[in-house]
Amino acid sequence: MGARNSFKNINTYANRGMTLEADLKASNDYYLVNDIAVIYKKPTPITISKVNYPSRVEAVIKEGYFKTPSTTDYNGIYKGKYIDFEAKETKLKTSFPLNNIHPHQIEHLKKIYKHGGIGFLIVRFTVINKTFLLTIESLIKFLDENKRKSIPISYFEKYGYIIKDKYNPRVDYIDILNKVYFGG
Amino acid sequence: MGARNSFKNINTYANRGMTLEADLKASNDYYLVNDIAVIYKKPTPITISKVNYPSRVEAVIKEGYFKTPSTTDYNGIYKGKYIDFEAKETKLKTSFPLNNIHPHQIEHLKKIYKHGGIGFLIVRFTVINKTFLLTIESLIKFLDENKRKSIPISYFEKYGYIIKDKYNPRVDYIDILNKVYFGG
Repeated sequence: MGARNSFKNINTYANRGMTLEADLKASNDYYLVNDIAVIYKKPTPITISKVNYPSRVEAVIKEGYFKTPSTTDYNGIYKGKYIDFEAKETKLKTSFPLNNIHPHQIEHLKKIYKHGGIGFLIVRFTVINKTFLLTIESLIKFLDENKRKSIPISYFEKYGYIIKDKYNPRVDYIDILNKVYFGG
Repeated sequence: MGARNSFKNINTYANRGMTLEADLKASNDYYLVNDIAVIYKKPTPITISKVNYPSRVEAVIKEGYFKTPSTTDYNGIYKGKYIDFEAKETKLKTSFPLNNIHPHQIEHLKKIYKHGGIGFLIVRFTVINKTFLLTIESLIKFLDENKRKSIPISYFEKYGYIIKDKYNPRVDYIDILNKVYFGG
């Protein structure tokens, strides 16, 4: 059983030590280079309080602070539609704690949905190596029907979509969007 | 003549010492609060090289560098459509130098156009206090037909749309988008 698991791990992609963020960067690069979609991670919001200018061309930030983001991390365009999502990893095996996502990020996704965009979460359970896409519609349904502070993995299995490991793109969430929103 | 100019300046909004960036922030806040559109400026991209953790909750960035942005500064959603633009000020009175915009930002806007999004520039001539919206279609046309390194203001007057000063929203570019893309 131990041997079988080791063998299995060698042949999966998510166990190569890549983070979800790195996998998404590689996937978004793939979509961009192949002219499939234009989706970027937003830079980390920072308040800069001190900057040095040692030369004309180069400024060095000497003091700055991380800000709470107002929006989700990822957005862009696919087949003319506005795409917006947040991506998170958890080491838990049975549920995803909602405190991983800022309340205003959930509010942001609700606004995107209301304005006709496609919003979702990508959640990776790192220990069991499963990555799910959960649409904002299903997230809203969960929040409306539950007072729980975490989403059980059974909810992802029932209402979410599993994103299988691939070589390229590593996290092919566009494939899921095709099935869910574009009749593909 | 001097007196007339002073009087005129008192009665315009763009001369209150507000930058285009501040005006756009106020306008995007207005669109958000009034549930008209969800459009944000992206954070400035930074490479962080040193971080201190003086306490559990607060991290202080001690060294960082500004990165060249890969995309434009602003994006979001309006009436279900993906919106993407760059905003620039110039002190020149007769033309807008194209070196104000990174070549890959223009490439980015071309991709947005190709994928069915709405892309444009907002350019403010600060000295003469005129703000124009120029669609990516018109920018592509200019680049295709010209080898000039700056866009003359006459091109903005012919192919662009003037965004009049208003109290709220200060830079009502959505009003222009309504006319150009939404038959309003």
